[in-house]
Amino acid sequence: MEPADIEGPGLLKPGRGRRKAEDVRNATLSAAAELLLAEGVHALTFSKVAARAGVSKMTLYKWWPSPGALAFDAYFNAFQATLAFSDTGDIRRDLTTQLYAFVDLLNRSGPVIAGIIGAAQGDPDLAETLSAHYVTQRRVLAVERLTCAQQAGQIRAEVDLETIVDQLWGAVYHRLLLPAQPLTTEFIDRLIANLFQGVAPNPADPAA
Amino acid sequence: MEPADIEGPGLLKPGRGRRKAEDVRNATLSAAAELLLAEGVHALTFSKVAARAGVSKMTLYKWWPSPGALAFDAYFNAFQATLAFSDTGDIRRDLTTQLYAFVDLLNRSGPVIAGIIGAAQGDPDLAETLSAHYVTQRRVLAVERLTCAQQAGQIRAEVDLETIVDQLWGAVYHRLLLPAQPLTTEFIDRLIANLFQGVAPNPADPAA
Repeated sequence: MEPADIEGPGLLKPGRGRRKAEDVRNATLSAAAELLLAEGVHALTFSKVAARAGVSKMTLYKWWPSPGALAFDAYFNAFQATLAFSDTGDIRRDLTTQLYAFVDLLNRSGPVIAGIIGAAQGDPDLAETLSAHYVTQRRVLAVERLTCAQQAGQIRAEVDLETIVDQLWGAVYHRLLLPAQPLTTEFIDRLIANLFQGVAPNPADPAA
Repeated sequence: MEPADIEGPGLLKPGRGRRKAEDVRNATLSAAAELLLAEGVHALTFSKVAARAGVSKMTLYKWWPSPGALAFDAYFNAFQATLAFSDTGDIRRDLTTQLYAFVDLLNRSGPVIAGIIGAAQGDPDLAETLSAHYVTQRRVLAVERLTCAQQAGQIRAEVDLETIVDQLWGAVYHRLLLPAQPLTTEFIDRLIANLFQGVAPNPADPAA
């Protein structure tokens, strides 16, 4: 997904290479992200992006294998910061912050991400890109933060942290991809409460 | 999705109507399910199903709006029984039974269901069919069983049962649609253990 062949003939003026290439790349990703949010993934074409970014269509053909790949790159470039993991030392607080931001993102641009995940189900190339550039990376970041919490004694030692990822972010994706119930901050609060406190009666509770 | 217009001209012989229509429907759904599992949703056409089921292609056009709708109907007709909810009185045992069956089903025909969910993201008609004929129904069945468990004191009274659906079945769909970790019975055991016991340290535990 990184721009390759940036010294290609007719593409860049000598002596301004690397800097110019980065500007072009950033302008392209911004234009693609704007189009994506305004019109959706199916409406994204190299022509439209090239026109909005003021770059040549040939450049886009050289750097991205398809409009889908460009859409994907633009999307995750734009929202990398939104989905950062903070570490205040309180895992429930940090999960709440991260998942509130995720829900907010999905409420603004859910159809775009649903469209990308949907398209990946019938497109092995997109599936591989999605896995390598997004799914695996996001899981690693989440498990890193959860590992710190486990070491700090905020999660029991025997708990498998990968499973927690599916029970928090997977639960949110479920409401995005198979919609039936609302994606709200109250939902996030319940996800975290269920998972940390458990849903079984408290054995110390006389009412149990 | 129910066969309509079963008395259409040239379709059925007088006097044998309803029975024959049901036979034709069942033969069609079986043939479609076999083709679906063998070749995937994208390979399914009315011609292939008609040939395998020994029915006229016109019949399929009358009963199903598209091959996708037929695929969907065939799939859920075939696996309705697999995904039944039992009630032995022990909620953890019944969830384990149901989710083991779900994982087994996904390990045999995961790409088919992933293909249907994926296609629904860009197809509002399919999304509506999926929601009305599958998602909503499955959630109602799950919440019914969970409600019994809550009334029996096996789930705390204040727990929102819809959220549990996302943290069990949604977590499984997450591993299907954004694959990164295996879909195994061990995963199901962990999902249920995390959710019922909670992942936070036990306050009664002196090590906590």
